[in-house]
Amino acid sequence: MTENSNRQDPVIGVDIGGTKVAVGLVDSSGKILSQLRKPMVANGKPEAALEAVTAAIDSLPSQSESGSASPRGIGICAPGPLDPVTGMVINPPNLPCWRNFPLASRMTDVYRVPVKLDNDANAAALAETRWGAARGYRYVFYATVGTGIGTGIVFDGRIYHGRTGAAGEGGHVSIDYRGPRCPCGKLGCIEVLAAGPAIGARARAKLSADRFRHSTILDLAKGNIDTVTSELVGQAHAAGDPLAREILQETVELLAAWLGNIVDLLDPDVIVMGGGVAAMLQPFFGAIKDRLPSWCVNSRVSEIPLLIAHYGADAGIAGGGALCSEIGVPSES
Amino acid sequence: MTENSNRQDPVIGVDIGGTKVAVGLVDSSGKILSQLRKPMVANGKPEAALEAVTAAIDSLPSQSESGSASPRGIGICAPGPLDPVTGMVINPPNLPCWRNFPLASRMTDVYRVPVKLDNDANAAALAETRWGAARGYRYVFYATVGTGIGTGIVFDGRIYHGRTGAAGEGGHVSIDYRGPRCPCGKLGCIEVLAAGPAIGARARAKLSADRFRHSTILDLAKGNIDTVTSELVGQAHAAGDPLAREILQETVELLAAWLGNIVDLLDPDVIVMGGGVAAMLQPFFGAIKDRLPSWCVNSRVSEIPLLIAHYGADAGIAGGGALCSEIGVPSES
Repeated sequence: MTENSNRQDPVIGVDIGGTKVAVGLVDSSGKILSQLRKPMVANGKPEAALEAVTAAIDSLPSQSESGSASPRGIGICAPGPLDPVTGMVINPPNLPCWRNFPLASRMTDVYRVPVKLDNDANAAALAETRWGAARGYRYVFYATVGTGIGTGIVFDGRIYHGRTGAAGEGGHVSIDYRGPRCPCGKLGCIEVLAAGPAIGARARAKLSADRFRHSTILDLAKGNIDTVTSELVGQAHAAGDPLAREILQETVELLAAWLGNIVDLLDPDVIVMGGGVAAMLQPFFGAIKDRLPSWCVNSRVSEIPLLIAHYGADAGIAGGGALCSEIGVPSES
Repeated sequence: MTENSNRQDPVIGVDIGGTKVAVGLVDSSGKILSQLRKPMVANGKPEAALEAVTAAIDSLPSQSESGSASPRGIGICAPGPLDPVTGMVINPPNLPCWRNFPLASRMTDVYRVPVKLDNDANAAALAETRWGAARGYRYVFYATVGTGIGTGIVFDGRIYHGRTGAAGEGGHVSIDYRGPRCPCGKLGCIEVLAAGPAIGARARAKLSADRFRHSTILDLAKGNIDTVTSELVGQAHAAGDPLAREILQETVELLAAWLGNIVDLLDPDVIVMGGGVAAMLQPFFGAIKDRLPSWCVNSRVSEIPLLIAHYGADAGIAGGGALCSEIGVPSES
């Protein structure tokens, strides 16, 4: 099949999660031509899980402009830990089906095309660099802020992997070594301080501490503090709620302290943030930039753009597609 | 002069500080053939300061094996901020003589050889990579721990500079966003928590809090708490003092939390530590390594060597020499 492939042919981006697998046909400009989602079989046998992935790919309607039924390559993103060099899934907590499973080579056996594997945030960082908000930048720091915080570093158009492929775990940079324990085991990671669950928890704590304070957050939760989430904080802020604003401003300060560390270490030429919480925080991007000089020794930090990601819920599919540019089948003409 | 230069000829490494300028002839294997120190004129006019540097270079006995009187190149390290790309000294607090001073081009005017400028820690990191403890490693993180903490990142044999040359300021990575204020303005930088002055301050605080506790530290300070420094803590530890041990173990935990952040972001394949405090902490390198897994999500952190720097007080001269490898005059044959 590959001998007939063309640099303009689309590639397949695969986004494997604990409950769903999303697949899409991605063209050489990063456009997602078609996509679908299927349930993932993450708890069963390795082969059943692999079949869930191939079933999703096989269901994808081909919209290749060249009319070719086969993709030039397949790029897969999945939760870590995994080894991007060997294409092995090591032992992701969300994918108990696979332990030291050679996913890339098994997929190559099935489809007879090059297959690349990387973690979600790295892949999304690459998609933003190739086709999205970070296009044209040389030193890219990307963060997806949602239920957790995942980050990826792209230098000169290539994912920075470090020694073992474990680099770019910026969500577990601690800014509070005596702080709360992150599910990862470390204390004071930015993830445990500023991701969605932390924002929800901060709202619940403030509402519990002052039961007489009126807040739209509580209205949206129908008076039940226990059901308050970061989403409700975002909705309340959009409706002009002062408490929601206060909570998000505290998050701004935490993110500025964290990004200050990143800038002092990496001096990137762009910072891109994606994910649900980043979208909610977009009105505060100016505030984050205003606070960054207090959290950096880098005297020119204000020149670094802080941009919202181009890809939203499709970041995984686009990320998978972008990975194909690293397997000798460039996805840009 | 340059037409007669040979790749085997030595280069000149220059280490400019606020009070002294050290110069040395560095051969292609990183050996310092000769060196001398002169007072630096850091508070006067730009030209007087330049003359202090050239006077030091001109006093250097030539020991070139080739018999050539001229170096192939000159590498200068100085405190930042400076611009390694343009060779401009911007506005270092310790060098008020120079504000936006084109040091590299002015030196080239004098000596008619390529001149490279970079900050101390970056240059020392490069020297360790080319000739020292980090030789043969691809992703190098270097830290010099002394009065302050300076760091440098070397990827594939080249200093990682980032967008403006300001990357690698790892000493100002904060691990305590509500912590003590660093002279740089940030809160909780590892420098303000774990460099020499912090170790001295911790010792003074502990001795003040418990006036009845006997400690060799106090003996060495002749009973005067106010004169306790990190050096005395190190001497007391060498003499088996339990309080000194306690203080250094607390420093171990701080450094482990900080290095955990570095590893999670960069996944280096070696960590090298130099400087006076690092030398004092060398007996605790095993303890730092033991604590690192608690401060990393990187599951293979224990494989990363933590090594003492090869260059001691000569790190600046060697660093300057190593910089010459980045100016088209490779210092290795």
